[in-house]
Amino acid sequence: MDHEPARPAAPAGTSEPEPFTTADYAARMAAAAEAAADAGLAGLLIAPGPDLAHLTGYRPTAETERLTLLVLAAGRDPVLVVPALEAPDAAKAPGAGALALRDWTDGKSPYAVTAPLLEAAGRFGVSDNTWSLHLLSLQRELPATSYVPLTDALPMLRAVKDERELARLAAAGAAADAAYAQILHLPFADRRESDVAADLAGLLRVHGHSQVDFTVVGSGPNGANPHHEAGDRVIRRGDMVVLDFGGLKDGYGSDISRTVHVGEPDAEEQRVHDIVREAQQAGVAAVRPGVSCQEVDRAARAVITEFGYGDRFIHRTGHGIGVTTHEPPYMVEGEERPMVPGMCFSVEPGIYLPGRFGVRIEDIVTVTADGGLRLNNAPRELALVD
Amino acid sequence: MDHEPARPAAPAGTSEPEPFTTADYAARMAAAAEAAADAGLAGLLIAPGPDLAHLTGYRPTAETERLTLLVLAAGRDPVLVVPALEAPDAAKAPGAGALALRDWTDGKSPYAVTAPLLEAAGRFGVSDNTWSLHLLSLQRELPATSYVPLTDALPMLRAVKDERELARLAAAGAAADAAYAQILHLPFADRRESDVAADLAGLLRVHGHSQVDFTVVGSGPNGANPHHEAGDRVIRRGDMVVLDFGGLKDGYGSDISRTVHVGEPDAEEQRVHDIVREAQQAGVAAVRPGVSCQEVDRAARAVITEFGYGDRFIHRTGHGIGVTTHEPPYMVEGEERPMVPGMCFSVEPGIYLPGRFGVRIEDIVTVTADGGLRLNNAPRELALVD
Repeated sequence: MDHEPARPAAPAGTSEPEPFTTADYAARMAAAAEAAADAGLAGLLIAPGPDLAHLTGYRPTAETERLTLLVLAAGRDPVLVVPALEAPDAAKAPGAGALALRDWTDGKSPYAVTAPLLEAAGRFGVSDNTWSLHLLSLQRELPATSYVPLTDALPMLRAVKDERELARLAAAGAAADAAYAQILHLPFADRRESDVAADLAGLLRVHGHSQVDFTVVGSGPNGANPHHEAGDRVIRRGDMVVLDFGGLKDGYGSDISRTVHVGEPDAEEQRVHDIVREAQQAGVAAVRPGVSCQEVDRAARAVITEFGYGDRFIHRTGHGIGVTTHEPPYMVEGEERPMVPGMCFSVEPGIYLPGRFGVRIEDIVTVTADGGLRLNNAPRELALVD
Repeated sequence: MDHEPARPAAPAGTSEPEPFTTADYAARMAAAAEAAADAGLAGLLIAPGPDLAHLTGYRPTAETERLTLLVLAAGRDPVLVVPALEAPDAAKAPGAGALALRDWTDGKSPYAVTAPLLEAAGRFGVSDNTWSLHLLSLQRELPATSYVPLTDALPMLRAVKDERELARLAAAGAAADAAYAQILHLPFADRRESDVAADLAGLLRVHGHSQVDFTVVGSGPNGANPHHEAGDRVIRRGDMVVLDFGGLKDGYGSDISRTVHVGEPDAEEQRVHDIVREAQQAGVAAVRPGVSCQEVDRAARAVITEFGYGDRFIHRTGHGIGVTTHEPPYMVEGEERPMVPGMCFSVEPGIYLPGRFGVRIEDIVTVTADGGLRLNNAPRELALVD
């Protein structure tokens, strides 16, 4: 039985949420700078990516060899170093009013522009995806500085979502659910995986996604490769088909997996699906404040192991989600940090039988005081498609 | 007058080129390892991105917190460290036959798997876009190692293209030219920039692009922001419109800019366009083996400065192009390295008048023994659109 907290009556509709304000971003930057100081760091260096989006609302169109870097140091105002030709875009970001822009022009060294903003022998947290080019160049400019990856220093910086973030994640989840409901009515047999993937991408956009990040369609033996993208294989009657899709809606992520069957499944296919469904339920049931993240992995894995498929569950059980679709916390053996209300992550066990088929079932779950609350509510039974 | 070498009779058609073979990738990896040794490095560490695509043909679907890393060390066989669940995809890469796969599973440390492959006190070149998370984690695993960005250590590693690469770049350029020719026949006035951008993306795909990287449509005052992406602005009669678009075709990049006018231009618009066109021609004319890259920037900039717009040309003149659309060599003041036959880069001066309009004209140019050869041959006159 699925015994779970009641779903809040939050609207999952398609209306745009109230935008975050300059004050919101100012508060996030201040909190991050304070957390950095508490962790003994001289500051944080944030390159374009999810951390910058969270702290400033600025998402440059590309991450390139041209340095863009947010410098947050305790007791100093935030500064965003930007290429001069991107400064007009940066100035339009919702958080721009809470920081100073420092631009640099082609032919000049952006590291020389950044160095005076840093304590010369400071230790800094640096966003995980910052290019090594930039990190090493800064280190050459200021040889006494040292650096630690942001997720090592402050792994939980973005992990606990506030109510407005949760509402966005819930809306993104509801949109993914709606896309799934509709894909079941479209034909699968005799079409290529890539055709179904294009349908999924279109449905996500119809349901308000501004960005589609992945549309896995793994039919038959391709389903046994968890990271298989949709390819040229023509789906056949009798195939199991793993669907795993998501992207961004109003700046927050969706990520759902369901496994469907084209026509009637055989007994083993149904059985493997039942096991994964039970494992997924066990993972969700293990969600509770104060319990370590790895317990979610253990709970899901225990079910699959009990039924003899332990060595066919070849990945961790889940990952955090927020302004990006992969972030801390990770639901993996060794992650001993406790769950905290407001965390959001996937619970997505799977069984992969090489050369034959795979099954994965995934929901986004948020931690509440009462336990795990699913933000995906599409049916988890094995759906039969045509 | 455009006095340039004759264009080779290479087919710019849409047929797929002969794929690169395992032997091709083996040769590239061997050459890179040798270049690293010559530069006094213990080896090269290559994360997913253009360097990995060039060396192995492997393009993972995403760059994530899960480490994928090619280790090239002189005198050792290449090893690709990959997450276990991506190993099946990596094994299908065309270069996979020339390297050993070393996989790691969730919950284990990929850095512990990588460390034994590295000389414990070695100095390594690391691909520019390698995540800091991975670099710092490796450095923690092997504290005596040190690192230098790949473009600092071996800036010209991918800069000189062989004939088969040049044929691909020429075909990508011809495809972009064809897209431009067709967009001129579509309506501009009373449509949003984003609608024209969608048309451009569609045309690039029609002409064989597998990936569209950017579709800048900067109308009226938006054209004065060089990195403006297409937005909601409705294009009006009398607007100048900067178009800058490109992506990948058969794994190699296109990148072209033209500025068009909706209806008849006024005298100043025509004059600014003429100046940029002359500057672009001067930049191309400066291309010659043995001449430093910065001379291309100087030649283009001199024209614009002569006409009094020097402070309105706010970016470098060009960037290299290959398996990605931004790479060394850069055509920028301070780049003293000489041009070498086989290099490919953009020549793209512009003039930007804030609040009013911008003009940019860009071709991809390759260095031949006789000088610069354009790989874009769409007309550079100011085209009038409806």
